[in-house]
Amino acid sequence: MAAIPLFSSQFSTSILTLLPLPSSSSSSSLRKRFSCSSLSSSMENESQSKFKEFPYVSVPHRELMVGLVSTVENRLGTSLLACSLPENVQYFENETGSAHASLYVRSGNSSSQVDFILGSWVHCNLPTGGALNITSLSAYLKPSTDAPNFLIEVIRSSPTSLILILDLPPRKDLVQHPDYLKAFYEETQLDKQRQLLENLPEVKPYFSSSLYIRALVSPSAILVSIETEPSEATRIDEIIRDHISPVAKVTLDTWLDLCACAERRLTDDESADLGQRDGVIKNKTIEIDLESSFPRLFGQEVANRVLGVLRKIYNA
Amino acid sequence: MAAIPLFSSQFSTSILTLLPLPSSSSSSSLRKRFSCSSLSSSMENESQSKFKEFPYVSVPHRELMVGLVSTVENRLGTSLLACSLPENVQYFENETGSAHASLYVRSGNSSSQVDFILGSWVHCNLPTGGALNITSLSAYLKPSTDAPNFLIEVIRSSPTSLILILDLPPRKDLVQHPDYLKAFYEETQLDKQRQLLENLPEVKPYFSSSLYIRALVSPSAILVSIETEPSEATRIDEIIRDHISPVAKVTLDTWLDLCACAERRLTDDESADLGQRDGVIKNKTIEIDLESSFPRLFGQEVANRVLGVLRKIYNA
Repeated sequence: MAAIPLFSSQFSTSILTLLPLPSSSSSSSLRKRFSCSSLSSSMENESQSKFKEFPYVSVPHRELMVGLVSTVENRLGTSLLACSLPENVQYFENETGSAHASLYVRSGNSSSQVDFILGSWVHCNLPTGGALNITSLSAYLKPSTDAPNFLIEVIRSSPTSLILILDLPPRKDLVQHPDYLKAFYEETQLDKQRQLLENLPEVKPYFSSSLYIRALVSPSAILVSIETEPSEATRIDEIIRDHISPVAKVTLDTWLDLCACAERRLTDDESADLGQRDGVIKNKTIEIDLESSFPRLFGQEVANRVLGVLRKIYNA
Repeated sequence: MAAIPLFSSQFSTSILTLLPLPSSSSSSSLRKRFSCSSLSSSMENESQSKFKEFPYVSVPHRELMVGLVSTVENRLGTSLLACSLPENVQYFENETGSAHASLYVRSGNSSSQVDFILGSWVHCNLPTGGALNITSLSAYLKPSTDAPNFLIEVIRSSPTSLILILDLPPRKDLVQHPDYLKAFYEETQLDKQRQLLENLPEVKPYFSSSLYIRALVSPSAILVSIETEPSEATRIDEIIRDHISPVAKVTLDTWLDLCACAERRLTDDESADLGQRDGVIKNKTIEIDLESSFPRLFGQEVANRVLGVLRKIYNA
């Protein structure tokens, strides 16, 4: 199996550490799966649910994610291998049934420049009565090309708030490589997509609490938070459908055309440097994001299982 | 003479290219120095004025800049050599007398880690009747240390608007060097200074039109624009005095303690890599900022003179 990091979720660190999440204690007295909430009756069905059903999010949010996953899969076609994650990593939940998640990974075949694509969703009931929903899709390229990766993450912590991370994270130091900046960011005019969202009155720049995450994204990255009045809860879904979806489509098409499906000739030394840099990113990703948030969300036992699989994938 | 790039002014590119600046044509019919505006009578005095007088900005703005320059000079003491710029580069203006500028450079002596400090101010009358004022102070370290540089730039294009750039621009790829990020940005808690300004209602994040500039700054960089109502024009000076000045002081003190006056042991290879990266930055700085804005502001003849001196310094 190729490397399969859960890159995208690292962006949610600040959310996960700030929200009053329910405890996911691994105390044996809580080992009562499928028995302790109004959600329990549907859990066995949920465990069979597919990643692509995005069962907990609004229709525009689901359509956004399904559209992006379909676009990637249709374009990359048979160069992607089937998802081979263990079933209990493809879907998992915490002991109290308050947190659910799905992972979906397809590696590129040996002749593909794609290392893997990784999709995820996390749903978590909040003590306040609402729910946190995070959906993501990321795509990683192999060190045979230096082209940027792809990343989208949509975080909803209430009906009136949304955080969007959308970027082609660079794989080289842009300061030292202005030609790379020019080719992938200036000439693609990706910043115009950021400006389209910035112009909406509900949209504000979002600063991740992790400086490493801020350093990792490109200078045209879209990192925004969107807040609407409680009386206008449907407005966020309008924004997803009318504004975020077209911007995400343009960004993904740019990635597919210019990064995933274009050749970049590298020397062995360049590939080795890239592989080393990619490796640092993967290790930091596990440290920053998953090792802190997964035990809190899913309990140590489930977190160990999922992280164990992901660590092997990261180091593959 | 050591290398003396005009790093700081690159941040003002978007301002200089957007504002309706007066023409600074080098047509011989316009060669009437000291003769064509109400400002002309004071020009000979101005040509003698010192950088540190900041003659065109408000009192709080001047006090901010003078305070920072004094702090650097007092702390670095005799390790800084005297300014040796030609007099007509220390102060210059365009032919119509509508644009004035001063540069100030002091190089570090041979045993100093400081390459040089560079201060500047630019004043330019606008056709709309107002004026553009840019003041900056930057400080560069030698490749014998990998510690970050220092940069502040304050841009006022009207009494009710201000752009502030304040940062310790990193000298290594932070993605590949998380320990460097930790040492200079996380442990120093510089982001708290950014948050102090972000909390003011008049303050919004500022996005440079240059993606290279965005890539160059650290993840805790302060890049903000401040706008007040026309009825509250004095508010910006209050913000400079009560909020920007203390934040700038903390940032500069951090730089002096941790970067300029602390030893970092590097291998020869590390120094060589740093020198190469520093060189790319200098070349991009000239290209992005000075080569486009200086001819527009000061006319080709003055721009050639100043840029000629600066290019030699950059490549020293």
